Amino acid sequence: MTELYFDFLCPYAWRGVELAAVLRAQGEGFRLRFFSLVEGNHPDNAGGLTWRITDQPLDAEGGSGYLSYQRPTLNAFLAALAAYEQGEDAAWKFTLALYRAHHEEKRPLDEAAFADAAQQAGLDLSAWQAARKDEAGLRAKLRAELDSAAEVGVFGTPTFVLPDGSAAYYRFENLTRDPAEAGVWWQLFKDVLHSEAGIGTIKRAKKRPPVKRGG
Amino acid sequence: MTELYFDFLCPYAWRGVELAAVLRAQGEGFRLRFFSLVEGNHPDNAGGLTWRITDQPLDAEGGSGYLSYQRPTLNAFLAALAAYEQGEDAAWKFTLALYRAHHEEKRPLDEAAFADAAQQAGLDLSAWQAARKDEAGLRAKLRAELDSAAEVGVFGTPTFVLPDGSAAYYRFENLTRDPAEAGVWWQLFKDVLHSEAGIGTIKRAKKRPPVKRGG
Repeated sequence: MTELYFDFLCPYAWRGVELAAVLRAQGEGFRLRFFSLVEGNHPDNAGGLTWRITDQPLDAEGGSGYLSYQRPTLNAFLAALAAYEQGEDAAWKFTLALYRAHHEEKRPLDEAAFADAAQQAGLDLSAWQAARKDEAGLRAKLRAELDSAAEVGVFGTPTFVLPDGSAAYYRFENLTRDPAEAGVWWQLFKDVLHSEAGIGTIKRAKKRPPVKRGG
Repeated sequence: MTELYFDFLCPYAWRGVELAAVLRAQGEGFRLRFFSLVEGNHPDNAGGLTWRITDQPLDAEGGSGYLSYQRPTLNAFLAALAAYEQGEDAAWKFTLALYRAHHEEKRPLDEAAFADAAQQAGLDLSAWQAARKDEAGLRAKLRAELDSAAEVGVFGTPTFVLPDGSAAYYRFENLTRDPAEAGVWWQLFKDVLHSEAGIGTIKRAKKRPPVKRGG
């Protein structure tokens, strides 16, 4: 089972989740895991995790810049964890629906988007709302997710952890829902991680970003 | 012709130059280019290149930490540029000899190492010493190299710029001098840069470095 760390904020993670969903439909095992960019990049955490998003009030704004995403991050993760209680397929459907609302339809990560995602995912809506009421339990689960991410050394999303423990950030510009193409992109990532070269990083020079396809 | 930006300080760039040398022996075109980690990471250059290593005296120590490598960087690059005047093959031989002295034999980048590298490369030693006397001319050439690196957006070494303009940092842990293996490692890098996914970065999570082979 490959673990996939994502943050709803991140368009690269969205493409990673779409890729994994295509591969999952073909029988490859993926498990959704959470990483928070707001927590991971928080200035108070430069020397280790001391500022935890799970300790913050649901309505706290967080600050300026990327810190302003604190509230949507925390609320989206808790809504997702409540959805995940309805099983693996429900989890994927909810996650994809909320990602598409945010990154394809450009909707904010707010209560209306969560409710629409729950509906599109075919959740038992009253069970989902009931699960959301156990805020303390959901916060504890989220905290455990973010602790796991720190353990792995996740610094950005999407980060994939292969069954053999190899873990890497995989950032790509294009979206695919084509099974053959998804298979090629995934194999290339695994080839890099398993190369005898012991590859640590392949990263484009800054002034020449990779080509983004039209559409 | 692929351009290969390197810094004598960097063990990853050393392995990149060794890889390119193996491929070059099989007919693949590579051109050696300079990038300075001391200049690129200098605190005065956070907003653009204002502090230039080519403006510094040859004997200036530079400072603490990585800045203490300013003097060996500048001297090694100028010695190499003088060697490069004796042709492409001489350039590769000098570069490999100096890299191996520094990273394999753990010798400092000093005058004795430059002289030994010149001898091992089979240079015309008196012509090399004569070329070194044109310090202003060599500094101007070095400045042009470092300007080119900035143009490409080089931020670390080795960075390869493919003939189509794709440019990326390629960091790997292991050394190969095996033609078949070198071919595989190089093809994988090109596959990543040319993937339809539009890959920007593949980077290991911090706590699980790639496996380094013994020996």
